[in-house]
Amino acid sequence: MSTSVTMDKIVSLTKRRGFIYPTSEIYGGLANAYDYGPLGIELLRNIRNLWWKRFIQDRRDMMGIDSQIILHPRTWEASGHVGSFSDAVVEDVKSHKRYRADHLIESWIVGKKEFESMVVENMDVEAMGDFITEHKIKSPEGNNVTAPKKFNLLMETHLGTLEGQKDMVYLRGETAQGIFSNFKNILDTTRIKIPFGVGQIGKSFRNEITLGQYIFRTFEFEQAEIEYFFHPKQQKWEDLMKSWKDAMWSFVTKDLGVSEENVRWRKHTDTERSHYSKDTYDLDYKFPFGWKELWGIAYRTDYDLKQHMEFSGQDLRYTDPHTQEKYIPHVIEPAIGLNRALFMVLSDSYVEEDNRVVLKLAPQLAPYSAAIFPLVANKTEIIAKAEAVFDLLKERFPVYWDDRGNIGKRYRYQDEIGTPYCITVDYDSLTDHTVTIRNRDTMEQERVQIDSLQTYLQDHLFSQRLMSS
Amino acid sequence: MSTSVTMDKIVSLTKRRGFIYPTSEIYGGLANAYDYGPLGIELLRNIRNLWWKRFIQDRRDMMGIDSQIILHPRTWEASGHVGSFSDAVVEDVKSHKRYRADHLIESWIVGKKEFESMVVENMDVEAMGDFITEHKIKSPEGNNVTAPKKFNLLMETHLGTLEGQKDMVYLRGETAQGIFSNFKNILDTTRIKIPFGVGQIGKSFRNEITLGQYIFRTFEFEQAEIEYFFHPKQQKWEDLMKSWKDAMWSFVTKDLGVSEENVRWRKHTDTERSHYSKDTYDLDYKFPFGWKELWGIAYRTDYDLKQHMEFSGQDLRYTDPHTQEKYIPHVIEPAIGLNRALFMVLSDSYVEEDNRVVLKLAPQLAPYSAAIFPLVANKTEIIAKAEAVFDLLKERFPVYWDDRGNIGKRYRYQDEIGTPYCITVDYDSLTDHTVTIRNRDTMEQERVQIDSLQTYLQDHLFSQRLMSS
Repeated sequence: MSTSVTMDKIVSLTKRRGFIYPTSEIYGGLANAYDYGPLGIELLRNIRNLWWKRFIQDRRDMMGIDSQIILHPRTWEASGHVGSFSDAVVEDVKSHKRYRADHLIESWIVGKKEFESMVVENMDVEAMGDFITEHKIKSPEGNNVTAPKKFNLLMETHLGTLEGQKDMVYLRGETAQGIFSNFKNILDTTRIKIPFGVGQIGKSFRNEITLGQYIFRTFEFEQAEIEYFFHPKQQKWEDLMKSWKDAMWSFVTKDLGVSEENVRWRKHTDTERSHYSKDTYDLDYKFPFGWKELWGIAYRTDYDLKQHMEFSGQDLRYTDPHTQEKYIPHVIEPAIGLNRALFMVLSDSYVEEDNRVVLKLAPQLAPYSAAIFPLVANKTEIIAKAEAVFDLLKERFPVYWDDRGNIGKRYRYQDEIGTPYCITVDYDSLTDHTVTIRNRDTMEQERVQIDSLQTYLQDHLFSQRLMSS
Repeated sequence: MSTSVTMDKIVSLTKRRGFIYPTSEIYGGLANAYDYGPLGIELLRNIRNLWWKRFIQDRRDMMGIDSQIILHPRTWEASGHVGSFSDAVVEDVKSHKRYRADHLIESWIVGKKEFESMVVENMDVEAMGDFITEHKIKSPEGNNVTAPKKFNLLMETHLGTLEGQKDMVYLRGETAQGIFSNFKNILDTTRIKIPFGVGQIGKSFRNEITLGQYIFRTFEFEQAEIEYFFHPKQQKWEDLMKSWKDAMWSFVTKDLGVSEENVRWRKHTDTERSHYSKDTYDLDYKFPFGWKELWGIAYRTDYDLKQHMEFSGQDLRYTDPHTQEKYIPHVIEPAIGLNRALFMVLSDSYVEEDNRVVLKLAPQLAPYSAAIFPLVANKTEIIAKAEAVFDLLKERFPVYWDDRGNIGKRYRYQDEIGTPYCITVDYDSLTDHTVTIRNRDTMEQERVQIDSLQTYLQDHLFSQRLMSS
């Protein structure tokens, strides 16, 4: 992350250039909701696809699935979400606006020496209530607040078409439960052996009060979760945890190209950790508003499968093909929010230099690998030649076409959207069949034969590990 | 489509091999809901990515976006969904099960000569009620049914965390409205000029009564929709319609490799078409249960943008950069259901031959491009050599590893999941560095140098148009 990056700058750039729009802006917007514009969706797709390649396709011990957003409601009773997936919320007694109790306390203790070592995640709803009362903590509007009350985060909807006879169901609060509830089907229909993992990418929904930290926390968001199943006597969970932590670190710093100094591990405290988890870590990123969780990894024991066995009455045990031992596998769960990953990538690549703003995105993440510029827009031969270059490259690389304004302006635009290479077709191109390639980061230019453009881009873009699908 | 394919065979193969599972099966399932297993999600991803490449990335006049599933509720008032997005539903007076009136009538007229030319889509709710009464049409259980009543298909949920103060919102009934409501943002933040189109892939939800036609119609489903904006005086809509119809036809028959004899165009009748649409066609596929809509294309005039202008009070007009004329663009909308596309691809590639079932998937769609078989699982050198082949290929192709059972059985398994090539590493491989490649469709085998495997696969897999992203 450049030292100059701030929330305002990221929000401004991403709105201005079509990465991220407030959802339903023409209707006054929707709180904590964002849509991805033409550039944002390409960046998001590249992150999604790279995650899928590394963690599903490249590994013999991994598989993907895609479960529905709406599952049978018993799923969420089994998982414990119906009973205890909730936030403690207070209400401003005058404005009636709602705030999360932990957020109020966190803001209040900032800069107060005596509370420096206090971990708000460790406080239960009563402790928070007492703390708010004791210190007379007010709402951001300066009014008193009610005692904190717990509210469930699952969003409800109904199936069936006649009023009064509808069946209540939930929008999933996480993708993970779609993996556990398909565990038996996966065992029955594939040839995979323990240890193995199942991953899924998809939207989840949580009815949360947020702090308005842009796309960091939104009520609708995209997760990429993995459940890795193993036999706790055949493999040490500490070893598996370490190898997954290494894989996560490598993905962030190598595949996503994020600076190592902006990433760190944080171990959960005993109180903070879920009761069924034996160990949990967060991979934190230094967002413009501070260190925050990007990617969690938890050793969840056999809690989830056990719960689903009990609630469904189905046998979810795995049979060891050699010993015939039947057992409930344990799991390690690495779970990342892809919107946060995108936010991180944008923050980390934002650089201000002299007269320009550049997104120094890892080349394999850039929405466009190259931009094609006909030097002038009114010369038919140059347009035709540039179109030929566009068509030559488009089969293998996402390419952008721009025939407007002077070349300098076109460079600045591509710098701001992170395009690694700009290719200009000029008068010389018509006779010597070369073009000018300009490098985003060094701003150096060189002359390259059109025939060798594909190889040039292939070599320069994917000098890092290749994303091929 | 093979002449031998039936619904039962498709359902059985896709369940048995891990393409498609009933959602929440361990809890007794959820009606008309399906999850995609390890093979299904790879096939779905390949269809998604190919659509995105052809219609968004390969074209200079197209862009993608990704809007939320939950939009501002005014969106659906403007679009007309709150007022008129509904099905006519009847209820069995004894069982209280609900059925769509049009489905009941359609089933009843099958095989009755006098109603052969009747188009049920043309009947309004009263006409259907009269028809049901006149012909004493019963429910599938043989009981009388109530008069048809209209029920809205939009699914509701609530935002906000305190009971009684929640704001009602809808799960989107189509992705298209996320494009219209972002139209102003797209104009403001990109350099695109009319004519241009915007596409989006994502989940939509409709609270429908269905006929249980597997993944053909489910309450949660995945759409890929395009809105193509143009000036009706600068371009003839008939010409645009034709070029889009050609592109759709080409995608189905060339990119997805579907037989031309199983695809046809059907023009909507005047009554069937929405009131604002000037012309609508369905690209139908011959599914195992008959010809049904795969992909619709409609000329929607300026209806949607006009509605959103009126309901939002925002100016959604486009300004012509040359003439400065301000106008509301017209749109043509090609909208495909990706689950149906997947269903079509499975049906069309299912073949029974002698002793085997083969999915003759277009190579670029297959979940795995190749399977790697070490001839025996207990010889370290062969395993190591096979692993080297796996690692060599995995950077560029999705590959499957199988070291179990005899080679013949492994071939049969790969045939059923549509893997175009099987590569066996044997004793000779250790000395001459060649492997046996076996072709899925011809079952012919040839010996190939390991060094040239990448080129071999590249040439053989993508002799059709290449999917590179």
